[in-house]
Amino acid sequence: MKASLITIGDEILIGQTVDTNSAWMGHELNKFGIAVQEILTVSDKKTDIHSALKRSMEQSDIILITGGLGPTRDDITKISLAEYFGAEMIFHQEILDALTKYLEGRGRKLTEESKSLAMVPANCTVLRNKKGTAAAMWFDEQGCIIVSMPGVPHEMKNFMNEEVIPRLKERGIISNIIHHTILTAGVGETVLADKIRTIEDGLPDNISLAYLPNLGTVKIRITGRGDDPDKLANEVRQLAEEITHKIEKYVFAQEDISLEQALGNLLAQTGKKAGTAESCTGGYIAQQMVSVPGSSAYYNGSIVAYSYGLKEKLLNVNRPIMEEKGAVSEEVVRMMAEGALEQLEIDYVIATSGIAGPGGGTPDKPVGTIWMAVGSKNRIKTKLFKLTPHRDVNIPLTANLALNELRKFLLNENGEV
Amino acid sequence: MKASLITIGDEILIGQTVDTNSAWMGHELNKFGIAVQEILTVSDKKTDIHSALKRSMEQSDIILITGGLGPTRDDITKISLAEYFGAEMIFHQEILDALTKYLEGRGRKLTEESKSLAMVPANCTVLRNKKGTAAAMWFDEQGCIIVSMPGVPHEMKNFMNEEVIPRLKERGIISNIIHHTILTAGVGETVLADKIRTIEDGLPDNISLAYLPNLGTVKIRITGRGDDPDKLANEVRQLAEEITHKIEKYVFAQEDISLEQALGNLLAQTGKKAGTAESCTGGYIAQQMVSVPGSSAYYNGSIVAYSYGLKEKLLNVNRPIMEEKGAVSEEVVRMMAEGALEQLEIDYVIATSGIAGPGGGTPDKPVGTIWMAVGSKNRIKTKLFKLTPHRDVNIPLTANLALNELRKFLLNENGEV
Repeated sequence: MKASLITIGDEILIGQTVDTNSAWMGHELNKFGIAVQEILTVSDKKTDIHSALKRSMEQSDIILITGGLGPTRDDITKISLAEYFGAEMIFHQEILDALTKYLEGRGRKLTEESKSLAMVPANCTVLRNKKGTAAAMWFDEQGCIIVSMPGVPHEMKNFMNEEVIPRLKERGIISNIIHHTILTAGVGETVLADKIRTIEDGLPDNISLAYLPNLGTVKIRITGRGDDPDKLANEVRQLAEEITHKIEKYVFAQEDISLEQALGNLLAQTGKKAGTAESCTGGYIAQQMVSVPGSSAYYNGSIVAYSYGLKEKLLNVNRPIMEEKGAVSEEVVRMMAEGALEQLEIDYVIATSGIAGPGGGTPDKPVGTIWMAVGSKNRIKTKLFKLTPHRDVNIPLTANLALNELRKFLLNENGEV
Repeated sequence: MKASLITIGDEILIGQTVDTNSAWMGHELNKFGIAVQEILTVSDKKTDIHSALKRSMEQSDIILITGGLGPTRDDITKISLAEYFGAEMIFHQEILDALTKYLEGRGRKLTEESKSLAMVPANCTVLRNKKGTAAAMWFDEQGCIIVSMPGVPHEMKNFMNEEVIPRLKERGIISNIIHHTILTAGVGETVLADKIRTIEDGLPDNISLAYLPNLGTVKIRITGRGDDPDKLANEVRQLAEEITHKIEKYVFAQEDISLEQALGNLLAQTGKKAGTAESCTGGYIAQQMVSVPGSSAYYNGSIVAYSYGLKEKLLNVNRPIMEEKGAVSEEVVRMMAEGALEQLEIDYVIATSGIAGPGGGTPDKPVGTIWMAVGSKNRIKTKLFKLTPHRDVNIPLTANLALNELRKFLLNENGEV
């Protein structure tokens, strides 16, 4: 079973937008054993859309299209699909009703242009959009499945998770594949691969491993294929246990969750509260913690203190010491942690102070020098990291490393590591 | 003159790597008046590379290929190109010498595998790699220019800047395409389209408009094509002015920058400082502000106060009023703003308090109810928004709306709106 992805939009061809949708979709499809044959990016022109569709339908069984579904005139995906399949455009009252309701809920009114969103090709099954205004369309044509979705990433993802994958499952296109994810943090993929080499060398043909590194974490994905679901589930579970045993101290989850979610789960178990004092990460850790629904139960807040003045005023950092050692120092990050423990009414703390770049580096403390502290009122643990020259890497990487440090601290304190 | 881009690599099809090269190349080519017809991403398989090459050579005059040039066995771009053109692979002593020197400079030695880097198709012009090990290749075949470059972004960029663009210039391959971007915030694309409908209806054939919406912002892109560069630049500039005039109050930039960058530019001009008091956005606004290099010049920090206790303690929010009105209320968000102005040593403030969801909604205040305040010591402006049921949309959307409110406040205070 092969898939082709078609991305429609001039904005991608002229480089104004980076196509992140295709990578996400490729990753999802791959998880379910569907290989992506090709990714085609074409303009908002009918002939180009038709040409891409023809090629993809010749090569693949499943064609997933994103983009060009808005209400404005440059959005011509729908009409192009209708023409390609020789179908009429028909009006769907249900789409208009849902759209009117969606807009009303947001205090907005239906405009003349947005009415065009209710017109779709007669030969498609309409998939309702729960995250936005443009519906998606599912076609069964010439032995292919073709799905056209909006290009807005969170809308596309919702369609994939709630419509496309379940429907492919229903049809038995993605049965008999089992995935298991082991999430690790604080270790590189080559070290992990070394540690489980003997296991990997002895894998049976129906099971494969993939390593997916991302900013301080590595996802190990086990994929198993087989006819007997129970036997397969057993095989995969056993393998996951063997692997976990070899790399136990790096593993933070046996499911595909974020570090902030894993840390949140731990905190929720303890019934205690955490907070953060951030300099170089500038609120990034706070927003990660808060991105988890229900985080208000265990996360109190953050003091983002970018300046010397605020570090002193809000976090009681000793000014003379800060001036002697610099804001990026073990002493300051420890005082930030202590200050936050006092100020934020919390039991556990993360503090960061570093040089994210591109400016601010010195020979002693080049860009990428990061001090962090995690701990509780009883004990604070500090750690120095030397990261990259790139601000856009250093900030999220620091955040992940810090979340992992607090996670380890909590486990240690509760006698689990 | 049209170009096609071919990206070679299994890692992109399975979603392990996001293809950022194509966007960069598309942007560069456009600047020089070359339209990208299509982007094709294919696997490291000979047949797929041949198929992509055939299609691209039928559609375009210039084909830029990235990826698959390393020394390992899965890198088969060179041999695939040689076979496609019916050319032999030949050995280049100069490549080997340059490679040996490059590796020596880094304390590394030539391996048996890396010697394969000196073999190239006989029909190509070799382009020397100044940033890495694999040479690039320039082909003139069947009326097309085909260039094959490494996929490592900084190596590819160096080849583009120092070899490809200069060689295309030498050959006089240039027509004129001009883009202009107008960035708007706080308005939907359909409302914008309604407001500039008469302009859009009267557009000449050589000029087109596109709307690119993203979480509270809409990018309007004008694209013009024509033989006379000065005349075209004039046409596009005039059109941009006309459009801007119709939608002036929503426009925040005439170039492709983020809202946090636009706000940062304004703040840097005033020489004053801003800070934030965040509840529902939980540090998201802080990390947006801090994501801009140099933001420490105008951004002091944030108090992320998730609990009632912290709102009272750190932001001096009056507890009885908070208990009467609720944390998500005009009164509380105003007091949060006032508290932050006092605590953060700042001139301008953003405060947010809302129900991001999925829990916490009530009939009176459903999920998506967001209060925000922006202002200075002289004046604070509050505003209520009713957003979506989705936490992952509400948080970044609130952040963008709030950044835009402070931007408007600053302009207003400085008499510009």
